[in-house]
Amino acid sequence: MSQAQVVRVPVYRRFSDLDVLGHVNNVVFHDYLQEARVGLLRDLSFVRSAEFAQVVVEQRLRHRKPLLLAPEPIQIDTWITRMGNSSYTIAYEIRDEHGDLAADAETVMAVVDATTGRPIRMPERLRDVLAPLLATTH
Amino acid sequence: MSQAQVVRVPVYRRFSDLDVLGHVNNVVFHDYLQEARVGLLRDLSFVRSAEFAQVVVEQRLRHRKPLLLAPEPIQIDTWITRMGNSSYTIAYEIRDEHGDLAADAETVMAVVDATTGRPIRMPERLRDVLAPLLATTH
Amino acid sequence: MSQAQVVRVPVYRRFSDLDVLGHVNNVVFHDYLQEARVGLLRDLSFVRSAEFAQVVVEQRLRHRKPLLLAPEPIQIDTWITRMGNSSYTIAYEIRDEHGDLAADAETVMAVVDATTGRPIRMPERLRDVLAPLLATTH
Amino acid sequence: MSQAQVVRVPVYRRFSDLDVLGHVNNVVFHDYLQEARVGLLRDLSFVRSAEFAQVVVEQRLRHRKPLLLAPEPIQIDTWITRMGNSSYTIAYEIRDEHGDLAADAETVMAVVDATTGRPIRMPERLRDVLAPLLATTH
Repeated sequence: MSQAQVVRVPVYRRFSDLDVLGHVNNVVFHDYLQEARVGLLRDLSFVRSAEFAQVVVEQRLRHRKPLLLAPEPIQIDTWITRMGNSSYTIAYEIRDEHGDLAADAETVMAVVDATTGRPIRMPERLRDVLAPLLATTH
Repeated sequence: MSQAQVVRVPVYRRFSDLDVLGHVNNVVFHDYLQEARVGLLRDLSFVRSAEFAQVVVEQRLRHRKPLLLAPEPIQIDTWITRMGNSSYTIAYEIRDEHGDLAADAETVMAVVDATTGRPIRMPERLRDVLAPLLATTH
Repeated sequence: MSQAQVVRVPVYRRFSDLDVLGHVNNVVFHDYLQEARVGLLRDLSFVRSAEFAQVVVEQRLRHRKPLLLAPEPIQIDTWITRMGNSSYTIAYEIRDEHGDLAADAETVMAVVDATTGRPIRMPERLRDVLAPLLATTH
Repeated sequence: MSQAQVVRVPVYRRFSDLDVLGHVNNVVFHDYLQEARVGLLRDLSFVRSAEFAQVVVEQRLRHRKPLLLAPEPIQIDTWITRMGNSSYTIAYEIRDEHGDLAADAETVMAVVDATTGRPIRMPERLRDVLAPLLATTH
């Protein structure tokens, strides 16, 4: 049973998120995931600092239900499913204003040297932010 | 050995594709894949017609090398790896102006009824466009 | 002296709104104005219905102060400065989380026939929504 | 009579440029102008260098004809209508694949110190790029 913390990040939809079909375009779901990551890290110095940067290595997303435009935010539940030496995996569930699952997703992130772009050991201060979110099951 | 056709779609980068790190943002890679799909289908009536619509069901993308801004287009090679009754799978390779692999990806598409959104049997005219691109190996 | 109502629309910034300079890109300000318009009209049936559509005819925007990324929404004050037969003018002030003016703008909107795209007399139900926002001075 | 050079920049449309009305969204026109500016300057070191950055101060755009999706690029003619000490004005005409005017626009740009953000005298190397594009009439 998971004791892990889940971070819930609200994201407000925009008119420009819609495509000609009148749904939130599939590309925009990845923008929502990016918002969830920024919300998870809470501090842009974790996205890039003088020492390190974080880059997306791999992404997987499954669409479950179309998203329409609504004034209420979608809610993205986010947690960590794997912590490696220089990379980790984030899981997400995107829910609409009715609580229905619109998509689930996973991202593999790598921590790289800010100058060389080479993978480096994850800094302690980043590990401290992520560790409480690590779930073995969910 | 594959006899399949590969469709190569050029996509021109924009300044707004870059994020604060100076790279093409990971979200924009999915916009490039969308451009490849539109190029593959050649005709927007395949994206949505009175009878049917196509929707993205699942996406997987692996980043291989950062993309920077350059005046030359990126090239996206696209082919079909699976044809089902109401869904199919597209594979992609995104290459930069040096021919280096920037990302590879896969998308599962579903064909749905334009009104109900329910999966339907793929129309023959769509099957005719996709069949020559079907590769068992690549 | 103006008795007019001002509609204040909050808009949440996204990481992808930033450009390589680390500021909200100038293009994105126009996306914020679009959000303000949607907030102003409250109901997408005013953007397009079976009878009529609204289109942007002219836009003017003056940047006053750069916008950075912050968790608080920006606030967009919106009111009407002119009501014609088939067109009207919206004014906006975009303020950051400190209340500082980041930009002011004006948009001329036209009401057109949904089928022909030709200007038509503004429908009464749209006029009823806009009239309380009409200010001769501000 | 103008002896000035006009720079013509092609921009390729994307599926994601369309909104629910099936037209290129008004916000995206500003992205096209940004592409024209990047094409005009030809070199991103003019957008930002160690010494100076260029920022958009004021924008005006008039829509003339809706843009739809087409495989051919739009063409943006760009020239300079004013050169000041620390600012200048760019004029644009956006034409569709038939040569029809879709929009015309003007942008006031300011050259600022890269660190303080304060207006500075335009560097000679930037002036050298812009001067041949200066037209008193067009």
